[in-house]
Amino acid sequence: MPTRNRSSKLLQALARAAVDPPPLWMMRQAGRYLPEYRALRAKAANFLDFCYSPELATEATLQPIRRFDFDAAILFSDILVVPDGLGAKVEFREGEGPVLEPMGSADIGRLNIARVRPHLAPVYEAVAKVRAALAPEKALIGFAGAPWTVACYMAEGHGSRDFLAPKTWMWRDRKSFVALIDILTQATVEHLSAQIEAGADCVQLFDSWAGVLPEDEFRDFVIAPNRAIVNSLKTRHPKVPIIGFPRGAGSMLGEYAANAGVDAVGLDYTVPLAAAQAVQRKLPVQGNLDPVLLLVGGDALSARVRAIRKAFGGRPHIFNLGHGILPATPIAHVEALVNAVRAAP
Amino acid sequence: MPTRNRSSKLLQALARAAVDPPPLWMMRQAGRYLPEYRALRAKAANFLDFCYSPELATEATLQPIRRFDFDAAILFSDILVVPDGLGAKVEFREGEGPVLEPMGSADIGRLNIARVRPHLAPVYEAVAKVRAALAPEKALIGFAGAPWTVACYMAEGHGSRDFLAPKTWMWRDRKSFVALIDILTQATVEHLSAQIEAGADCVQLFDSWAGVLPEDEFRDFVIAPNRAIVNSLKTRHPKVPIIGFPRGAGSMLGEYAANAGVDAVGLDYTVPLAAAQAVQRKLPVQGNLDPVLLLVGGDALSARVRAIRKAFGGRPHIFNLGHGILPATPIAHVEALVNAVRAAP
Repeated sequence: MPTRNRSSKLLQALARAAVDPPPLWMMRQAGRYLPEYRALRAKAANFLDFCYSPELATEATLQPIRRFDFDAAILFSDILVVPDGLGAKVEFREGEGPVLEPMGSADIGRLNIARVRPHLAPVYEAVAKVRAALAPEKALIGFAGAPWTVACYMAEGHGSRDFLAPKTWMWRDRKSFVALIDILTQATVEHLSAQIEAGADCVQLFDSWAGVLPEDEFRDFVIAPNRAIVNSLKTRHPKVPIIGFPRGAGSMLGEYAANAGVDAVGLDYTVPLAAAQAVQRKLPVQGNLDPVLLLVGGDALSARVRAIRKAFGGRPHIFNLGHGILPATPIAHVEALVNAVRAAP
Repeated sequence: MPTRNRSSKLLQALARAAVDPPPLWMMRQAGRYLPEYRALRAKAANFLDFCYSPELATEATLQPIRRFDFDAAILFSDILVVPDGLGAKVEFREGEGPVLEPMGSADIGRLNIARVRPHLAPVYEAVAKVRAALAPEKALIGFAGAPWTVACYMAEGHGSRDFLAPKTWMWRDRKSFVALIDILTQATVEHLSAQIEAGADCVQLFDSWAGVLPEDEFRDFVIAPNRAIVNSLKTRHPKVPIIGFPRGAGSMLGEYAANAGVDAVGLDYTVPLAAAQAVQRKLPVQGNLDPVLLLVGGDALSARVRAIRKAFGGRPHIFNLGHGILPATPIAHVEALVNAVRAAP
């Protein structure tokens, strides 16, 4: 299978090669656990300004590659730039994370897909800068939130426990909720296409809240929009691999892997080996170390890294965490992880 | 299979009879969505005092049976009475939920299993009062939190997002974490036995945080302690059925059902039909309506109730939610649910 960069271990694995040792990157690898990130972050007053500064976003993206020599860089950005691009009101408050003005069906008319690319031009500029600065054997991963997950933030305004707002909308006024999902699907296609055109070698769709839906709604609002995005991207950019990460999919993981159309599946840290291997018989998999175990370190970490390598060795596998790295993670544990993943088995 | 109360539909279903229409109760059915509960709750200054008043706990337990004629009453209490009984410091702050003083390995020596029964005597008094007041055909369900879930609260002090404290403890000092789980296992056996001796007809083990563990730890800290509790209870009270509710078990659900030893399995609202039916071929199942859909009501609710009845009809099934009822749920929707569950198919 042709890729744009034959020297990249990540792209080889995504093209279904069993690479040993496996390519390694970490979700949220550019972030607060790095002292150099914290210093850089202080240069912008708010988080969105930081994301929209091509210079700062580029530097943040490159920091973990310099320090740990990971096999892939993932663009420093946020899944909420898409609603921001659409014209929803997004704010990042220090210490609180993202806050949106919660929206309902009456606000859908204000969302403007044509605004996404121009508004997010600085993001694509960062992609081009990163690609220019990266060594050819390092892949650059673009990303976006999947429609259901982004809709949760748009309906609720913030993280949630019961997902009352998006589910109420979905069940009370399905037609307008479908309209929202459709807009997000199209906007996501634009956003990922623009990243690819600017130099992203592959992309990941984060469906962080996939795990809170009943079966029927998982099909309608996780699998179907993921598949629609993949179909559109494949028409425009047939050679660019797409990783899907349906966090918490549980017993729906196999159906997601079979039907979402993605080239590889990200596994959260709760996916048991048997379920993961069933997926891996069909598609490359990525994951799935518990980020708390990386934070804890020591023998328990080394043993689990060996177990993951053993379980997924011999078939296409990308070593990663099963969720984003935690801010309190010691640098030395990440160094130990890199050594353990790259050690002879 | 003999039960203590042959007229109870719930106990018939737990004894593997396919009862039609299925017995119905709802997790958290005694609670804030009921105006009569809110009025009653105002009579005690704090939540623990409320739980420890046999009169108030009895009345709260009976309220939903009077209003909705559910097939079972579940004791009004809280999973944190067990750590409180053990001597951990538990406080309920208004509007904040339970708050414990977070504990670590150095505090284990202070936990006292012998203190559980005497300290929780008012709970067992409530059980006896409820059983005396309930019609014979209504089953009384006792309950406890499962050890992993209770340990999460004890280590973290409150609800959690990353479960950093219990997982760090588990991976950094496994020996003392196992000691904590063992103490909780023994204390839970005492607490459930005392409820049974006071008149509970069956019991439910709530493992609300089962879904945040990797596979190996799910086996060690969900399945193994659930099984240990079941084994001890079966020695003492062989005829009393035990429902296990491993919320969020995902792909580990089948293994839980096969190995935890429980008589029936509670299904959360994300469990897909195929996985649920695989469990139901071996054990009675309970669930699994999304509580947000009950809150929303209308046609979407009626359609889902019909779908659940159809999916589980013909084999042992207990109709329930897939998580506790939400405080904002309209009474009229609960009435509609009762009618729909009891309507001719």
